[in-house]
Amino acid sequence: MASQVIELRGHIIDSLILPRIWDAIMRQGGTFQVSEMRVGQSATEPSYARMTVSAPTQAALDGLIADLEQLGAEITGTPDAQTQTVIQPGVLPDDFYATTNLPTDVRINDGWVSVEPIEMDVAIVIDRASGGARCVPMHRARPGDEVVVGHGGIRVHAIERPRARPEIFSFMQNSVSSERSKTLIIRDIAREMRAARAAGSKILLVLGPAVVHTGARKHIAELIELGYAQVIFGGNAIAAHDCEAALFGTSLGVDLQTGDPVQDGHRNHLRAINTLRRYGSLEAAVTAGAIREGIVFNAVTRGTRLVLAGSVRDDGPVPGVITDMVAAQEAMRDAIEGVTVTLMLASMLHAIATGNILPAAVRTIVVDINPAVVTKLADRGTTQAVGLVTDVELFLRELADCLREPAKESS
Amino acid sequence: MASQVIELRGHIIDSLILPRIWDAIMRQGGTFQVSEMRVGQSATEPSYARMTVSAPTQAALDGLIADLEQLGAEITGTPDAQTQTVIQPGVLPDDFYATTNLPTDVRINDGWVSVEPIEMDVAIVIDRASGGARCVPMHRARPGDEVVVGHGGIRVHAIERPRARPEIFSFMQNSVSSERSKTLIIRDIAREMRAARAAGSKILLVLGPAVVHTGARKHIAELIELGYAQVIFGGNAIAAHDCEAALFGTSLGVDLQTGDPVQDGHRNHLRAINTLRRYGSLEAAVTAGAIREGIVFNAVTRGTRLVLAGSVRDDGPVPGVITDMVAAQEAMRDAIEGVTVTLMLASMLHAIATGNILPAAVRTIVVDINPAVVTKLADRGTTQAVGLVTDVELFLRELADCLREPAKESS
Amino acid sequence: MASQVIELRGHIIDSLILPRIWDAIMRQGGTFQVSEMRVGQSATEPSYARMTVSAPTQAALDGLIADLEQLGAEITGTPDAQTQTVIQPGVLPDDFYATTNLPTDVRINDGWVSVEPIEMDVAIVIDRASGGARCVPMHRARPGDEVVVGHGGIRVHAIERPRARPEIFSFMQNSVSSERSKTLIIRDIAREMRAARAAGSKILLVLGPAVVHTGARKHIAELIELGYAQVIFGGNAIAAHDCEAALFGTSLGVDLQTGDPVQDGHRNHLRAINTLRRYGSLEAAVTAGAIREGIVFNAVTRGTRLVLAGSVRDDGPVPGVITDMVAAQEAMRDAIEGVTVTLMLASMLHAIATGNILPAAVRTIVVDINPAVVTKLADRGTTQAVGLVTDVELFLRELADCLREPAKESS
Amino acid sequence: MASQVIELRGHIIDSLILPRIWDAIMRQGGTFQVSEMRVGQSATEPSYARMTVSAPTQAALDGLIADLEQLGAEITGTPDAQTQTVIQPGVLPDDFYATTNLPTDVRINDGWVSVEPIEMDVAIVIDRASGGARCVPMHRARPGDEVVVGHGGIRVHAIERPRARPEIFSFMQNSVSSERSKTLIIRDIAREMRAARAAGSKILLVLGPAVVHTGARKHIAELIELGYAQVIFGGNAIAAHDCEAALFGTSLGVDLQTGDPVQDGHRNHLRAINTLRRYGSLEAAVTAGAIREGIVFNAVTRGTRLVLAGSVRDDGPVPGVITDMVAAQEAMRDAIEGVTVTLMLASMLHAIATGNILPAAVRTIVVDINPAVVTKLADRGTTQAVGLVTDVELFLRELADCLREPAKESS
Repeated sequence: MASQVIELRGHIIDSLILPRIWDAIMRQGGTFQVSEMRVGQSATEPSYARMTVSAPTQAALDGLIADLEQLGAEITGTPDAQTQTVIQPGVLPDDFYATTNLPTDVRINDGWVSVEPIEMDVAIVIDRASGGARCVPMHRARPGDEVVVGHGGIRVHAIERPRARPEIFSFMQNSVSSERSKTLIIRDIAREMRAARAAGSKILLVLGPAVVHTGARKHIAELIELGYAQVIFGGNAIAAHDCEAALFGTSLGVDLQTGDPVQDGHRNHLRAINTLRRYGSLEAAVTAGAIREGIVFNAVTRGTRLVLAGSVRDDGPVPGVITDMVAAQEAMRDAIEGVTVTLMLASMLHAIATGNILPAAVRTIVVDINPAVVTKLADRGTTQAVGLVTDVELFLRELADCLREPAKESS
Repeated sequence: MASQVIELRGHIIDSLILPRIWDAIMRQGGTFQVSEMRVGQSATEPSYARMTVSAPTQAALDGLIADLEQLGAEITGTPDAQTQTVIQPGVLPDDFYATTNLPTDVRINDGWVSVEPIEMDVAIVIDRASGGARCVPMHRARPGDEVVVGHGGIRVHAIERPRARPEIFSFMQNSVSSERSKTLIIRDIAREMRAARAAGSKILLVLGPAVVHTGARKHIAELIELGYAQVIFGGNAIAAHDCEAALFGTSLGVDLQTGDPVQDGHRNHLRAINTLRRYGSLEAAVTAGAIREGIVFNAVTRGTRLVLAGSVRDDGPVPGVITDMVAAQEAMRDAIEGVTVTLMLASMLHAIATGNILPAAVRTIVVDINPAVVTKLADRGTTQAVGLVTDVELFLRELADCLREPAKESS
Repeated sequence: MASQVIELRGHIIDSLILPRIWDAIMRQGGTFQVSEMRVGQSATEPSYARMTVSAPTQAALDGLIADLEQLGAEITGTPDAQTQTVIQPGVLPDDFYATTNLPTDVRINDGWVSVEPIEMDVAIVIDRASGGARCVPMHRARPGDEVVVGHGGIRVHAIERPRARPEIFSFMQNSVSSERSKTLIIRDIAREMRAARAAGSKILLVLGPAVVHTGARKHIAELIELGYAQVIFGGNAIAAHDCEAALFGTSLGVDLQTGDPVQDGHRNHLRAINTLRRYGSLEAAVTAGAIREGIVFNAVTRGTRLVLAGSVRDDGPVPGVITDMVAAQEAMRDAIEGVTVTLMLASMLHAIATGNILPAAVRTIVVDINPAVVTKLADRGTTQAVGLVTDVELFLRELADCLREPAKESS
Repeated sequence: MASQVIELRGHIIDSLILPRIWDAIMRQGGTFQVSEMRVGQSATEPSYARMTVSAPTQAALDGLIADLEQLGAEITGTPDAQTQTVIQPGVLPDDFYATTNLPTDVRINDGWVSVEPIEMDVAIVIDRASGGARCVPMHRARPGDEVVVGHGGIRVHAIERPRARPEIFSFMQNSVSSERSKTLIIRDIAREMRAARAAGSKILLVLGPAVVHTGARKHIAELIELGYAQVIFGGNAIAAHDCEAALFGTSLGVDLQTGDPVQDGHRNHLRAINTLRRYGSLEAAVTAGAIREGIVFNAVTRGTRLVLAGSVRDDGPVPGVITDMVAAQEAMRDAIEGVTVTLMLASMLHAIATGNILPAAVRTIVVDINPAVVTKLADRGTTQAVGLVTDVELFLRELADCLREPAKESS
């Protein structure tokens, strides 16, 4: 039998960390002996537990401990993290430690160093010179990089569920049924966005094309004007159809004023793309007065950062759309710095891509009429995402109302 | 070869009646010879076609002619409808003619008589004394009833798609994608409802429990106040949760002001039902001042007819809920007289039940976040239903806004 | 400050009972002091915890304790349950205790008595003469019935999640993603059904009409033959379309051999119903040789109990369909005795109705292509249901294969 | 008033071309005079119509005629197509003709030339030297290219719905309800695939990651072995998880034999990608014996062409995945030559991308558990796609059964 002492700190009971730890131990055939437990008696007082974990073999114990660290356990008497050096460009050592999106520390020279910014499913590279640690995606591994391997010397902090209400993020489940009131939840989201801006942090909107097709582009344009959209992620279609609307008043050939298809209108988005290509860039099209309103116009004129990542289904593409996927990921990584609130709106592809690089600490709301989108995002590791199964157009209309007139929020 | 001359009249081209007829003939191995065709050249001018239909045998021709009549063909030189007499109570003659929900005439004494009101999947009984014809559901067949059998002497009028816009009912497809603007469509619906009221006809709302759970009950209450709900169909849950909200401020135990579950709140709907049972009726509970606002209150105090049909999953039930399904159908049949617009809101069971008894000429809008509901309704014969895949709470909020302030509608 | 000692026993840690208790206390502003805790160290050893719970007022404590009892807490020094007598028929005392579907004991004469059989959302009536306790739905309350009120003297046993695999019921989450392998899960279900039969207990199938429309009726018929369907619940449509298939080879007019609609076939289900009505009962139609194969035939000839509960959307109805909803619930209650495994197949209405009366200890699998059905069932209290988002026809084909040839199961 | 004579040929009645033409004329305020109409009397005999179309202005007539050509009308006395020359690389003339995916001819030197291969939403470039015409996507337009502008001199052939059954493609609607029998339809698809192979044409499979997650990769591997997959399109995840399964027996960390998550298994797909990157290519990994079974193995060893188009959400990526989206589209275009049957299996992104470049004449079946996927594909112009709402794993299991044992097909 091999044994190790572990410690747990924080809101380990109501965030279900403690029972998950116990459950994991028993599922994997281990046992445990609790030597100390202090339960926080109020909303602000953290809890503490210390216990000895045992497993039949050292290998089993190591695997188990690795899992417990993912759940927030802190290993007493932890040695430094082990590393191996990259030999082949773009290839990591076999046993590299793959990150989660939770706050993570790595032990270097007997001290804990935070991995900043954290991102899931990448490696950790240690910089001995500066004593720091950073995330490195597989394709960016360079010969000589010192990569953390195994599970020793790593600790992960679970995101603790706050006890105080009212905020939607206190929900234990990560999906809001279509049978609950959306109006109440939209007010909570508006409050959260206002608080983020008051604190000087950024809001990221991830947009799917239905935002434009449903006519909700005017609400996004208003969010930009009101200062609630510092960064926007989307694809080729967002720019194409937003500019189609600005140029021809249609989206996918449907008149946004009347809802009717216009004659020969299915070609309008191609004409819009062609027009933008003639100007050479979105900025040039705005400067030349070709595009006079909408998401692209407001983003360009008000300094919202617009990252458009292409996909294999694109027409054109629109100038400025990044067609290389590795470059697109880098641009997105670069743009999320300082973001604390993210709204994913009727987007699947770009929502998952954003979830991949977003720290778990970022408040993330997913709005889609299809419940499967939320499930998929959570299945792929973006467990912090709170899903709202609703109509994105009516959601944005209501949200813009709330943000425009704060009074409404408390009505 | 057996042959017969048929005639078609009306908007047979753009309503696709003519090609469907041709298609049906050829699919069933028949042939046809067009002897006359006049195509209407304007929106008001009907078209006309006359043709000889042939089939290999008389039996095949009879079957084919029966199908063509369903599609709107009129048989030249039609004899009177044939009838058989009911012998066993609740059992129809074997070969009884089963109705559609389209306007239907039956030939009696060499004249056409309209079957009023029409309803799908029932028999037609002829009253020789008055010269009239009426629909009779199977279980109401009485010995001596003279029931139409076979397909001779029947003609069915297709609902013609109007050429003029703008109205959502001109859509050829019967489902509105979640990628279209709902705001525009909601304005069309509001216009339609206002027109119905101006013409003195009734509006029917079919409500599912999500209308109450999402907090949209206040919008339904407002529709009643504004005069846009003469009849309401629903189940036990509608009354139970609406009164739960009126009594305790919750729906299924969730506080409608805060969205939070209240302590021990999952019992509130049972307490509400128990309270209503103590009063003996919804009317008594309102009169006694126990219920002071909401759907039930407004319906009782403003004369909206409330038909609550129970189901096998009900608690209680609430007094006034009809527990016998045959009686419930009769009550619904009785209540739809004069209805020209129906909104089915987040309801499946009661929506299908209503679709079963509603003439196809009634404008029918189905609002549900689940696209399968619309498909199911259409599959069961309610082909006139236009589906809106959206969030019922936000839909009703917007609709109430439009109906309250007509100015908004045209903005 | 008011205080009370509570005790917890069983698999309280990995079934998350303990942390839920703590969480509930703190959310409601209470505090607790753990005086003893022993954690089970193996899969068979239960855990134990004793703690003092405090709340600001006695009323707050009472409410809190009531909630904790729902979560499985046992109150030390519990007095007998309090009761009140029913005065008005069909109306319970205001403060009646509403049951859950979990195993429940009530304290009478200082001893614990099990409420058998348990069912959710009903009252508990005590029979002083026999010393027993039974569930009573609201409408069956009779003057003189002694009904349990308040929360004292009640204890509820959480269903403990077994630690040992492999069985699908060990899943913590109650829904199986459409991205997991169904073949594996189907084998687990087959194993579970075989075990139930080996133990002499019954299997209940709840059927929606899609089972017949998709042609899967032959698989249900085979399950009956193989002895895996002692009880079947369904609606009018199940009998109507199954007999339509037996009589005419169609379901809703679609030929089950070719998948094509047959001429005039949409009337076939009405003709089938009319034929059954002529015979007067399903049994008579089978005996007379009119129905020679299928679900109804096998059920009648092999003694499977068929409970058909009508609904407001029914045609006919088919003889034997119970049209009064209160009577239908009683028939279903009566039929579930001895059932330990339930499969709900493409049914919403009857699945929810069955969930309402089923003890939580019954293994319950919900198969539907629409993920919302599973969510709805769980939202309504049938939290033990495990959902499988898949195609019901292909599911049944595979399940029948597994049950027919046990060898396949382990391949 | 401006007028023009148009002609229609083929199965213009039962494919609804004729009424759509009439409908379009009247909706746009035009009128028409039928001068000749001959209706085909049998399944093989085409129909013919000639009529004069009039509109208030020449501009209105031109627009109208353009629309009618899209619907299959042939303009009598058509002049040659007009062209303009490309000036700026990657930018088309303003008024360029945007293609559909229907068979299209362009008039050059008073003769009709077929545009081969056809693809939607691109331009037509005429090669005066060879007298040919080809599709050119916007970004590939080169200075000097002679691009067709306006609508004159173009004719489009509607895909005619065949009269003979049985085949699923004869369905008028493009979606198969989840309430129909899938077994029958799967047999039709197997028959279609066998016919395609017998005719020497290719079958294309477009795969989403759920194919691997559900364990259906073994069925795809079998389809390759049986010769029913000449081309496979997919993304990074297909190769990553297929090789994860081959290397570790898991998909997304879930054991494909037991359905259980394995310890630390969520890292397996990253390890698999890292391993593949070490080998440098899929072919090298197979040759070296690292990958010994599965989709990738069978594709590499049996010559199935595998085109993997990356996306912004990818980890790694796997070597061989095309990360530039413009290059990926070119590779897909190149690979579809000779394909006559396409199965899109639980894929959204790659299905839409494939739909964009596929001629409408290619038989296209979309299998997904989510009905919205089919709708989306049709909304984006891939109207020929027939949707099957079912479970992809059980679908493939059944399809592989049918293709392995043809006897089963007719059982």
